[in-house]
Amino acid sequence: MKNLCVVLVGTRNPLNVGAVARAMSNFGAMELRAVRPYEKAWREAKSAVGAAELLARAKEFANVAEAVADCSLVVGTTAVGNREMRHPLRGLEEGARLIGKRMQAGRVAALFGSEKWGLSNEDLSYCHWLMRIPTRVEHRSMNLGQAAAVVMYELGRAERKRTDNAETQRAQRRGEKPAPFKPKGAAPKSGKREEFAEMETVDRIGEALLEALRKSGYIAVRGEATAEEKLRRMLRRFSMEAADAEVLLGMVRKILWKLEQK
Amino acid sequence: MKNLCVVLVGTRNPLNVGAVARAMSNFGAMELRAVRPYEKAWREAKSAVGAAELLARAKEFANVAEAVADCSLVVGTTAVGNREMRHPLRGLEEGARLIGKRMQAGRVAALFGSEKWGLSNEDLSYCHWLMRIPTRVEHRSMNLGQAAAVVMYELGRAERKRTDNAETQRAQRRGEKPAPFKPKGAAPKSGKREEFAEMETVDRIGEALLEALRKSGYIAVRGEATAEEKLRRMLRRFSMEAADAEVLLGMVRKILWKLEQK
Repeated sequence: MKNLCVVLVGTRNPLNVGAVARAMSNFGAMELRAVRPYEKAWREAKSAVGAAELLARAKEFANVAEAVADCSLVVGTTAVGNREMRHPLRGLEEGARLIGKRMQAGRVAALFGSEKWGLSNEDLSYCHWLMRIPTRVEHRSMNLGQAAAVVMYELGRAERKRTDNAETQRAQRRGEKPAPFKPKGAAPKSGKREEFAEMETVDRIGEALLEALRKSGYIAVRGEATAEEKLRRMLRRFSMEAADAEVLLGMVRKILWKLEQK
Repeated sequence: MKNLCVVLVGTRNPLNVGAVARAMSNFGAMELRAVRPYEKAWREAKSAVGAAELLARAKEFANVAEAVADCSLVVGTTAVGNREMRHPLRGLEEGARLIGKRMQAGRVAALFGSEKWGLSNEDLSYCHWLMRIPTRVEHRSMNLGQAAAVVMYELGRAERKRTDNAETQRAQRRGEKPAPFKPKGAAPKSGKREEFAEMETVDRIGEALLEALRKSGYIAVRGEATAEEKLRRMLRRFSMEAADAEVLLGMVRKILWKLEQK
């Protein structure tokens, strides 16, 4: 859970900030970040039982992009799914398993929206996919602190399960030299775990590409905001590895440079 | 989840009562009971988002025995385990699986203690076993509303898993007439599911037996309180079926009657 960042976006109630911090500490997630928190909520939350240190270390950010810049996977939590269906929606159990795998190789951000509105469409555009806690259709919307507790619990469960499986496998090969655990489905190159690109790199690609598209007349001025969001989503669906992202960024920048020469 | 009763013992904070109600409603548990709630907490909780009906139907009890009288399994939740180690302690995942099985045949009570003290030794003596949410050793104690949310989530997960398994099994026997799902490990007699004894019956056995032991001089007056608790625990460890409990009750009463004749 060291590689998990919990990102609260626009949280209003100090009790909820404190409750999220407490649940994180209960299950061993220690990195809390807040985007545009209500100043009061943020300051008053500092008293959460047992989570004072975690809250003292928590950082504030002006926007989602900055808050997730060093993460290689960004997952949004939602009660209803994406209204416009542009994001893959996973159940919490499947989601926690995937997050657990990714946390072995890099930072993962779990986004929680405001109590009233959840995550906005713009917030969602920074997410690779969405995750839903399986609540009843008749009463979907959970309290923020409780939703965070359930997510933290399930992430901890997924992690224990993976560790247990790895240990079982090792025990079965008794006598052999214990090998480091490799997540299923991953194909590590030259013995190393594959590293996914951090969001900062992906966003730099996005900016350069957008500018290039603008310059090339692909994007009309009127449709620019939509184009930017669409682009962000598309780049996230790629789930780029770090090395590939660097190469791509170089390519796009080169193209952009060329466009600017004309 | 229809057969689940959530029993709050000595809850002080109205926000927590409301939070528990909301989490119950999110995951489909609708029966809330309270033992000695702080009157204020109880009345002020009626505003929990989306759980007003559940709170309106909630019932108050003077003690744990009455609150769980119609349940055939009583499970205590704890952050630390039983200090005196007299109860079996199960992890939440295993506990939820067992509760799920038992809910098919009868009512199950899940007890949550007060925010400050948890469940007392006397409260615990009404429990068959205890269940612990796997929090970190460094920060074990959870917020009440969040603990309830995690337990409700895991119970829902266990239930879905069982249903899915049953459906998979049915699909595998495609073409055959679908059979009703039978829980593994249970050995139903004459086609019926085994029914476990309700706590009211078990308590009646306890009372009669205690009186019999008293009358027979087995119990010294000084040790009576301890003996009563020990007896309660022992009877719960038996996990009696309903029919057996009735028979046993008849036996003990007969013995008691005999003792009283002397």
